[in-house]
Amino acid sequence: MLSFQNDYSSTAAPQILTRMQQIEHEQHPGYGTDDYCKIAADKIVKLCDDPEAQVWFLVGGTQTNQTVISAITPQYAGVVCADSGHINTHEAGAIEATGHKVLPLPNEDGKITAAQLDDYCERFYADANHEHMVFPGAVYISQPTEYGTVYTLEELEALSQVAHDRKLPLFIDGARLGYALTSDGNDANLDDIARVADVFTIGGTKVGAMFGEAVVFTRGNTPRNFTTLVKQHGALLAKGWLLGLQFDTLFTDDLYFKLSEHANKEADKIRQALTDKGYDVAFVSQTNQIFITVSDKKAAELAKHVTLGFMEAVGTDRVMLRICTSWATTDEQTAELISYL
Amino acid sequence: MLSFQNDYSSTAAPQILTRMQQIEHEQHPGYGTDDYCKIAADKIVKLCDDPEAQVWFLVGGTQTNQTVISAITPQYAGVVCADSGHINTHEAGAIEATGHKVLPLPNEDGKITAAQLDDYCERFYADANHEHMVFPGAVYISQPTEYGTVYTLEELEALSQVAHDRKLPLFIDGARLGYALTSDGNDANLDDIARVADVFTIGGTKVGAMFGEAVVFTRGNTPRNFTTLVKQHGALLAKGWLLGLQFDTLFTDDLYFKLSEHANKEADKIRQALTDKGYDVAFVSQTNQIFITVSDKKAAELAKHVTLGFMEAVGTDRVMLRICTSWATTDEQTAELISYL
Amino acid sequence: MLSFQNDYSSTAAPQILTRMQQIEHEQHPGYGTDDYCKIAADKIVKLCDDPEAQVWFLVGGTQTNQTVISAITPQYAGVVCADSGHINTHEAGAIEATGHKVLPLPNEDGKITAAQLDDYCERFYADANHEHMVFPGAVYISQPTEYGTVYTLEELEALSQVAHDRKLPLFIDGARLGYALTSDGNDANLDDIARVADVFTIGGTKVGAMFGEAVVFTRGNTPRNFTTLVKQHGALLAKGWLLGLQFDTLFTDDLYFKLSEHANKEADKIRQALTDKGYDVAFVSQTNQIFITVSDKKAAELAKHVTLGFMEAVGTDRVMLRICTSWATTDEQTAELISYL
Amino acid sequence: MLSFQNDYSSTAAPQILTRMQQIEHEQHPGYGTDDYCKIAADKIVKLCDDPEAQVWFLVGGTQTNQTVISAITPQYAGVVCADSGHINTHEAGAIEATGHKVLPLPNEDGKITAAQLDDYCERFYADANHEHMVFPGAVYISQPTEYGTVYTLEELEALSQVAHDRKLPLFIDGARLGYALTSDGNDANLDDIARVADVFTIGGTKVGAMFGEAVVFTRGNTPRNFTTLVKQHGALLAKGWLLGLQFDTLFTDDLYFKLSEHANKEADKIRQALTDKGYDVAFVSQTNQIFITVSDKKAAELAKHVTLGFMEAVGTDRVMLRICTSWATTDEQTAELISYL
Repeated sequence: MLSFQNDYSSTAAPQILTRMQQIEHEQHPGYGTDDYCKIAADKIVKLCDDPEAQVWFLVGGTQTNQTVISAITPQYAGVVCADSGHINTHEAGAIEATGHKVLPLPNEDGKITAAQLDDYCERFYADANHEHMVFPGAVYISQPTEYGTVYTLEELEALSQVAHDRKLPLFIDGARLGYALTSDGNDANLDDIARVADVFTIGGTKVGAMFGEAVVFTRGNTPRNFTTLVKQHGALLAKGWLLGLQFDTLFTDDLYFKLSEHANKEADKIRQALTDKGYDVAFVSQTNQIFITVSDKKAAELAKHVTLGFMEAVGTDRVMLRICTSWATTDEQTAELISYL
Repeated sequence: MLSFQNDYSSTAAPQILTRMQQIEHEQHPGYGTDDYCKIAADKIVKLCDDPEAQVWFLVGGTQTNQTVISAITPQYAGVVCADSGHINTHEAGAIEATGHKVLPLPNEDGKITAAQLDDYCERFYADANHEHMVFPGAVYISQPTEYGTVYTLEELEALSQVAHDRKLPLFIDGARLGYALTSDGNDANLDDIARVADVFTIGGTKVGAMFGEAVVFTRGNTPRNFTTLVKQHGALLAKGWLLGLQFDTLFTDDLYFKLSEHANKEADKIRQALTDKGYDVAFVSQTNQIFITVSDKKAAELAKHVTLGFMEAVGTDRVMLRICTSWATTDEQTAELISYL
Repeated sequence: MLSFQNDYSSTAAPQILTRMQQIEHEQHPGYGTDDYCKIAADKIVKLCDDPEAQVWFLVGGTQTNQTVISAITPQYAGVVCADSGHINTHEAGAIEATGHKVLPLPNEDGKITAAQLDDYCERFYADANHEHMVFPGAVYISQPTEYGTVYTLEELEALSQVAHDRKLPLFIDGARLGYALTSDGNDANLDDIARVADVFTIGGTKVGAMFGEAVVFTRGNTPRNFTTLVKQHGALLAKGWLLGLQFDTLFTDDLYFKLSEHANKEADKIRQALTDKGYDVAFVSQTNQIFITVSDKKAAELAKHVTLGFMEAVGTDRVMLRICTSWATTDEQTAELISYL
Repeated sequence: MLSFQNDYSSTAAPQILTRMQQIEHEQHPGYGTDDYCKIAADKIVKLCDDPEAQVWFLVGGTQTNQTVISAITPQYAGVVCADSGHINTHEAGAIEATGHKVLPLPNEDGKITAAQLDDYCERFYADANHEHMVFPGAVYISQPTEYGTVYTLEELEALSQVAHDRKLPLFIDGARLGYALTSDGNDANLDDIARVADVFTIGGTKVGAMFGEAVVFTRGNTPRNFTTLVKQHGALLAKGWLLGLQFDTLFTDDLYFKLSEHANKEADKIRQALTDKGYDVAFVSQTNQIFITVSDKKAAELAKHVTLGFMEAVGTDRVMLRICTSWATTDEQTAELISYL
């Protein structure tokens, strides 16, 4: 059946599968010490325009968030994020499992603002009992957000400024970063992300790779002995070159950007159709995720033809659904979906 | 200066200090294996009317909450509580430090309801992604609440019923339990608490002891090797008889109840005065804590004569203050306070 | 350069790479809920001859050990293992990071014995202070061991018996299980492993897969909500079918066993050559790892032609080296290596 | 019955009990912000001759070790100690519960040496795989040791030098520090301890206090927000002045030293008697603990008259016992014990 359920249901871009085949007879040293990792890292560092940036390749998103956040957050502190943030909702308590509280702020369209962060810190330090509370110790946002919205460069710079004024590292979870970087109206490019963030990720799993998240510590921010921390979290892949090869491929001929842009364009077609047909679209998103609210009846009808993501019940007889395109979505699939709307 | 800042600013009830003096020349085995601990535990078990109850004596509230909650909450789960709950606000992340997320529900007057808990669980299990989320694994409430309010027996029984229907142990933090048990209109006695809770504490620190929290596991609920867990959390006092002796004293001649009732009576006088003078009292509390909202100017004036607890700014020119009586509050102190109101 | 450094330096068996290519246009549900995972699990369950067995697919060895051990070891307890065990030496403290002490026993040829385990438990419980100590809470062994040796069925049954008498689950780390199952003289087959162990792994990473460890909980031993625990440890692969597909392939036409046997045969040739040439072989191993002790001079000479694993200095002028074959080792490579010996 | 079982079986020195009585009617701010804590800290800082030293008062030894070690040890690292060290043997895994491996070195008479530590670090960094291992991250010793032996100043300075050369903080657990400082032949005074250690403790529980361990961070070494870390570990006593008062008393008129010296003198008498009677004394200790090895028969005979500490079985028919004096031991008790020897 047709599926727009998520952006991680296809194996990998053909370019990646081809290269996997080609290295059948090669031998490589393990744990990311191979040449492919080096080549891929160099390409990313160059795109970031930050010679002090250091790149690490991990397998999945939750393990990456867990490893990075526990490495950058002091023991007496927690990590500030939107209440809708992935670490606060859908990572099974992976952050708390490392001993840190997640400190959620109310989101608007999946975002938090610099003013919110500043106000939170201000009130924290003003509280006479703050030594008995969990300090804000790091800031986590995702670009795009859980709701597919994109922070503007101005918003990111303001968040970064406040975070740094408050001595907090800013971590940008880019599990779907490509979809943000290539969305219409986006004005924060990879070098901007590298400039405002202390650490960020470039997601592969949802953007054409079999798996893989590149972690970029900017401006020499890499925590001491980070390889050991990665290992300690069970996140160091033995055959690390599988990660290097994939990211090398993604950053060859702009593949990462082309795959992302394709998904956005397919989503744009769907967005247009939804508008034309008068659907209730929940967030003004320009990336590959579209959230719509429909009646239970309509949802049941759609479910006969296409698998969508179920988000939540809305009131007593409506539901929010997610339509998610990906780098693998074809024009035909999109047209078929639109025919059911 | 006169102080109504909190209920843990005096050393201990004279009966306790006297007995401390009397045992100067005794020798005791360590770590709670002494006779005083046994005697005190027996008295508590009897009051609970639960022959299978087991009692442990720890030193402080945060360590007790941390030790108990980490012992009763499965690894895949968190602990549900009111967002105003002490473990969520003022324990420096002690629960998360043991790997468990705190799952806050919006409080009303410091309380959560059975319906809220049931709805939370219902929605949790209805969520298609709940395996990627933190399971509710235990329920934490405090009696009285952080705001001095008291759960009725009906409320407690309902919470207990829902918790048990959902296979969740109910933990009642009784850091100020005496003040609830002796408040006007309270209808949940110690044996009721023992019946509805799977584990609860009887706070000594705030009710006449130098320090000490009695942990009562009801109906044979004690976790395996709990002594070792207490030790692992650094909560096993070497000279355990100091705890046993204090709780033996508190449960001799109803001292625990008399001390608590005294504090409530002093608070009642203050409540009456506040009503007479038209103060804005924040919660309808019948225990030893009173929360008032006053103008900044009034707060400054009061501060010249008496130390109160500062809770938070309210709007731009008002503040919430806490007036807290204790077992040690004298009639004279109360009268002096009232004269400043 | 020729390398016998380890058994995880080649990408994957050609059968696996071919199937990866074939599924390019398929779509699958995530997180291991796909059909390939089901098919692969069924095959493994059948081989285990344990209808109650449950199978999970994780990515890497350290994350698997961490997730399993923290799930089966009580909070008041640690995990008993050989001092040479991987979890005690080369996992960067991943077990301790979950709060559990590793309790090492002196190994002989990489093994621990039932008598050692029983004696350890006996002395533990006999110690008057054992409540202040870390309880033995689970037993970890690996088959084959870190030194390539293989437990006999009799040894395994004895360990299992003692573990169960002591109420301890037995976990067998089978990162290289295939090499044990197909070694000359091995008498513990997969169904025997399933019978003696409460949980064990079937390693893919070192036996032909790109990555992947199958975790088998026997006799209905799966911990509650294990999926959530896997997620919490960042070990739940989004595209879980990549694991299912690989293990389905490995357990089609006995590929797993054929790949393993091949490596052992290559190692046998090297062992014969070493014996013929009078080398000092450190352990009597029948699997794919061979440990030799040579002079520094000899080691330097070998290093010109072939990369071997460096284990440790022995005395002042000798070193222990590891020769490791794999499923990918060719007859030509083995012949070339022998020519340098 | 006569008991020489341990040094924490009497409540407290009379001077302390008297002062507890005297403060009955005082009110104090909580959590160590009172004047007694300040006075006591100032006295200790002065004795340490280190104006940058900072002092904190915690309740018990295990919680102190756990709080301090987790604060000073990096996440990628463990704590090096003697295999006989309290944290490795009798703290129920409290260190591992915070995520850190304990890295034991073989003790000699309870001690480790600078050369051992240096060699351990040397071999660690020389290991090609050390990034997959647990880094040495801090050094823990106790003065006196678990076996009552005392490090000489030269030994301490050497350990400190190696630790600092290796960038490791040196933590000295002084649960019985007084007994070391006042033992015959000791040449490391409090200011020496402060000079060689980065953090150390002055134990009260075993030297005249009801409870309490003073933590001294030297030369401005206090970890950021240490109060919050103390709270997070459940180690922040609400009525902190009870700790301040006790340490103020202990450091008034050299009480701490007098109490300690008294215990040592009583032990000296026992040591002399043991020598005279030809006992097999296990360690050359000059502090308040004496370890003897006797036949099972002799042990049974002694047990009729006096309670001693049972250490372990030695061979098939002998046992090691501990005779422990304390500040509370009377001349009469010592004479009676000697009469049974």
